[in-house]
Amino acid sequence: MLSAVGIVAEYNPFHNGHQYQLQAARRRSDADVVIAIMSGNWVQRGAPAIYDKWIRTEMALAAGVDLVVELPIFSAVQPADRFATGAMQLVTQLGCQSLAFGCEHPEYDFAALGQIQLHDDAQHFTNYQQPYPALIQSALRDQFGVSIDQPNDILGFNYARALDELGQRLNLIPIQRIGSQHHDQGVHTQFASGSAIRQLMVSGQQSQIAAVMPPSGVRLSASETPLSWQSFWPLLRYQLMTTSLEALTQRYQMTEGLEHRLRASAIKHPQFDAFLNAVKTKRYTFARIQRLLVAVLLQLNSSEMLDQHPYLRVLGFNRLGQAYLRQVKKQIQLPIISKIDQSVLQSQLRAEFKAGLVTQMKTHRSEDLYRHPIIKK
Amino acid sequence: MLSAVGIVAEYNPFHNGHQYQLQAARRRSDADVVIAIMSGNWVQRGAPAIYDKWIRTEMALAAGVDLVVELPIFSAVQPADRFATGAMQLVTQLGCQSLAFGCEHPEYDFAALGQIQLHDDAQHFTNYQQPYPALIQSALRDQFGVSIDQPNDILGFNYARALDELGQRLNLIPIQRIGSQHHDQGVHTQFASGSAIRQLMVSGQQSQIAAVMPPSGVRLSASETPLSWQSFWPLLRYQLMTTSLEALTQRYQMTEGLEHRLRASAIKHPQFDAFLNAVKTKRYTFARIQRLLVAVLLQLNSSEMLDQHPYLRVLGFNRLGQAYLRQVKKQIQLPIISKIDQSVLQSQLRAEFKAGLVTQMKTHRSEDLYRHPIIKK
Repeated sequence: MLSAVGIVAEYNPFHNGHQYQLQAARRRSDADVVIAIMSGNWVQRGAPAIYDKWIRTEMALAAGVDLVVELPIFSAVQPADRFATGAMQLVTQLGCQSLAFGCEHPEYDFAALGQIQLHDDAQHFTNYQQPYPALIQSALRDQFGVSIDQPNDILGFNYARALDELGQRLNLIPIQRIGSQHHDQGVHTQFASGSAIRQLMVSGQQSQIAAVMPPSGVRLSASETPLSWQSFWPLLRYQLMTTSLEALTQRYQMTEGLEHRLRASAIKHPQFDAFLNAVKTKRYTFARIQRLLVAVLLQLNSSEMLDQHPYLRVLGFNRLGQAYLRQVKKQIQLPIISKIDQSVLQSQLRAEFKAGLVTQMKTHRSEDLYRHPIIKK
Repeated sequence: MLSAVGIVAEYNPFHNGHQYQLQAARRRSDADVVIAIMSGNWVQRGAPAIYDKWIRTEMALAAGVDLVVELPIFSAVQPADRFATGAMQLVTQLGCQSLAFGCEHPEYDFAALGQIQLHDDAQHFTNYQQPYPALIQSALRDQFGVSIDQPNDILGFNYARALDELGQRLNLIPIQRIGSQHHDQGVHTQFASGSAIRQLMVSGQQSQIAAVMPPSGVRLSASETPLSWQSFWPLLRYQLMTTSLEALTQRYQMTEGLEHRLRASAIKHPQFDAFLNAVKTKRYTFARIQRLLVAVLLQLNSSEMLDQHPYLRVLGFNRLGQAYLRQVKKQIQLPIISKIDQSVLQSQLRAEFKAGLVTQMKTHRSEDLYRHPIIKK
């Protein structure tokens, strides 16, 4: 019997920090198989992945991941709690005994934090006007005396909490993030943040990436055009200009008249950065706004993002990953999708398909239809 | 008191045939003022105009038209009968005594043909499954013994019929179209069809156009990028890929499951021509399909194309045109629009504004907001 450790990742793109995490996960879990639950073509902070899911799957497999499973867009492009819930459903369905995740404070007892009591908390009702993350922060302070405010700590906490709610006990392996902070734009030593690396790639400074990415990642990205919001801005802008306000209000997380603000700003600003800054208010984070922009671009309504049934879509594997998949197949209750034809795309993968078609306008290769998992020899 | 002759035009682009028609209209009507009712940025056969409405207005003014008025998109991108009705509302509101139009058979008595009796015809009810144009053809044969099957004859007949229905008697001046046929692709002598000229321009053979366009038209088009469906195909394709089928069915003239065919063809074919040919069936003309594509691209639903109140929007004039406008202003019952601000765009000009914004993504100049009529000194 093979054992497995799960990692939730975006690999946007795969860099030395991921490599370090991967090795630590394998070593500390003592698992035979490393499984990555990976965002597809659109990532959690509300942006296109810099390379499509196939290139990023190849990067992961080349670096030693044994099995890559897609986190569906209705889980991937979501706030941390929904993102974590979707990922943990897949991790537990796949029978992982451990979950490894990078975080800023590995000394926290995430398993304990995950058992936080929210709904019994009277404040939940009296302070209902408080945003949800703030509610959780105050409960964490009250019950554990900690304040969790770093992005990866927050994700780790949400994984633990989702597992608790799913009634699953996994061996949690928090791994200290090393080198650059997540949003740090600098490139130091052999570690750099994903955003710093994306910045280098988009601005064409690819010569500098060899220091911070494994050679396979450098090779795989060499012939790819990096994608960013710039790539899709003409389509988004056109969409904001032509969609009726009634239709815009139906997009996922369109609230409080944001549709007026979005449309007016799109008409006024020909450049994406100026548009985004015009739309931004103190009330919303950039991630919140950008996820909304993904919903507008892909015409995703609330039902497409909330009322979906999870599925397990395999993006790639090596022999070990394949053997593991064979081993656990019978216990998996979700539909397992590896062959993608029209019928699947029109039912379960509808939102994914739309997302892929738009990506495809830039990558010029099929993102879903008739694609099979990548098999690494 | 100044008198006026009306011309309905697309000037797509303005060529020597239009110049000939313009001179003949002025001479034969003996009018002081020539008024062109001109399609805006999208034309009747369902396509973007090769140059935007401002360049085409300048072309018309340079060639001697005195006043250019926009035919709103909800009249312009319509079958011949609705196109003619919208145009004749404007012509009569503007107090034109004559209407000049090019046609293949100027010997027809268009005024008489326009009085055709359709609704009293029992066949109208028994043959209700017959398409509307076929119904009219058979009535023309029965009542007048003529068969009208040339594109400009058909438009002329529809002008006459619309005037009859509006209870207006105008002096009709049918002018023989000379030189090339409307869809002829060749360039002979000094006359060539609009489609032949567009072909030359899109394929970059601008050197040949000097023979078939007035010098002012050549000059005005020199620095412009010609627009075609190719220019907007990425946006249209993206729209077909992401719009829900429910929303697609609401687009103007989306019937009989065409939305499925359109979407599947858009996904399959990366090139516009292949897409269009895949969509085409015997049942529909290219113009019918292409008008539907305009509705999809601009997200125009039936209410936006059918339940609109006409208005009179001035695109440009010379001193004579200005004097004439001043003379008739008081009798005009429609709202006269010359200054374009947000309030006008959100009410009367809503569909026009959307159409202009999409054009603007290619012309990079405001098509509507804060634009004033062009004044030719």
